[in-house]
Amino acid sequence: MINKNAPHPLYHQVKNLIEEKIISNEWPKGFQIPTEKELAKRFDVSTITVKRAILDMVHEGLLYRQRGKGTFVTSKRETDLQSLVTLKHDAEDEVKHPHRMLGFERINANPLIGKKLDIDEKDEIFKISRVKLNGKKPVVIEHTYLPTELFSGLSEEMLQDELLYSVLQNNFGFELDQAKIYFSTLTANFEEAELLNVPEGEQLFVIERTTRTKDGTLVEYSKFIIRQEEYQFYIDVTI
Amino acid sequence: MINKNAPHPLYHQVKNLIEEKIISNEWPKGFQIPTEKELAKRFDVSTITVKRAILDMVHEGLLYRQRGKGTFVTSKRETDLQSLVTLKHDAEDEVKHPHRMLGFERINANPLIGKKLDIDEKDEIFKISRVKLNGKKPVVIEHTYLPTELFSGLSEEMLQDELLYSVLQNNFGFELDQAKIYFSTLTANFEEAELLNVPEGEQLFVIERTTRTKDGTLVEYSKFIIRQEEYQFYIDVTI
Repeated sequence: MINKNAPHPLYHQVKNLIEEKIISNEWPKGFQIPTEKELAKRFDVSTITVKRAILDMVHEGLLYRQRGKGTFVTSKRETDLQSLVTLKHDAEDEVKHPHRMLGFERINANPLIGKKLDIDEKDEIFKISRVKLNGKKPVVIEHTYLPTELFSGLSEEMLQDELLYSVLQNNFGFELDQAKIYFSTLTANFEEAELLNVPEGEQLFVIERTTRTKDGTLVEYSKFIIRQEEYQFYIDVTI
Repeated sequence: MINKNAPHPLYHQVKNLIEEKIISNEWPKGFQIPTEKELAKRFDVSTITVKRAILDMVHEGLLYRQRGKGTFVTSKRETDLQSLVTLKHDAEDEVKHPHRMLGFERINANPLIGKKLDIDEKDEIFKISRVKLNGKKPVVIEHTYLPTELFSGLSEEMLQDELLYSVLQNNFGFELDQAKIYFSTLTANFEEAELLNVPEGEQLFVIERTTRTKDGTLVEYSKFIIRQEEYQFYIDVTI
């Protein structure tokens, strides 16, 4: 297995062996890999070599560590960004969209939200905050801002376990047409860490979205704060 | 300006005042804002209130801090992700694509690269590493993997200050058709920190891309490691 006379460093070979196990699904997503000591014995190399290989693979995102538990094969769910702005669901999603409601308020906008929604900063908006659940696990904090002028009659009940886009289309008859999506990250503050059940300071993925209807009206601005280990986002692009 | 009898916290009002200055461009991108002491005096509030407002805005990405220098208005360049996979450049880009070459080697693939390029892990590939420069500033580390079988005659010179896609199309006649783009982040290790001139441990944005030609051949896999304060990526999507 390991060739100790090969020209490239030993830990490269160890990495390759581990990668093979992951790619062949011998070690599937979420699998807890053996300890460094066990791997060193199995590959007949030092634990320092194994440690170096694993550190590299954690850095590259193939493995992740949970303090006090061990090292696991990364199990992000590949998610087409297009699904963030689509109304068609796949069979799995058809059923339910469990959310925990955090807040549903009517407030005045501020300069930032005013700019995002192209309204006056003093205009009234709905601010809706929810946590999206995967089973019982919190995975995304969703903050949504809607001009109240466009949403008279909106109630907390309408949003119960519903996707926002369904409500916009089915309850208010908006013909959604274009979305603009921004990517960034942020460091979890105390509140975000609590809500997503991650350590404070954890790096989180952020997606911001604004949506326009066919006649060009800006109807919503949302900010999604996402646990990184849950989703691997991608897009398919035609060149 | 500040209404001390308003129902919402004072620091919200301070945030709003600062946001207004940013949005109106009175404080443009890259502008160094006054110190907390100066702002407290100007708004007639405590420095604790100002500090709280600024911390919030740093958290939200509107401001950033440079140790020992001060607090600045964020000045990310809005970049359409589509531009990562397009061959049309805007006027500004037409001129040059300055890159610093880090490495140009022929090596055997490994299980991971083999899987990305849909080739055998022992097949020979070109591994090309470059740093993209914005003026003299390093902004992106680019690692590119190409099957040598498809690129006989590829030389370091061909890539000099050129976009990879131009070389693929102009020097090798590939009709590029589809790209798949993944988003993630990583924590800068020592080498990445050195190359991008950021502190070790800094959070970096990662984009991975694979590209297919019209006949479905996978011709390249690239990994872009990007300074977060340089780019704000977005996509426009039709719903």
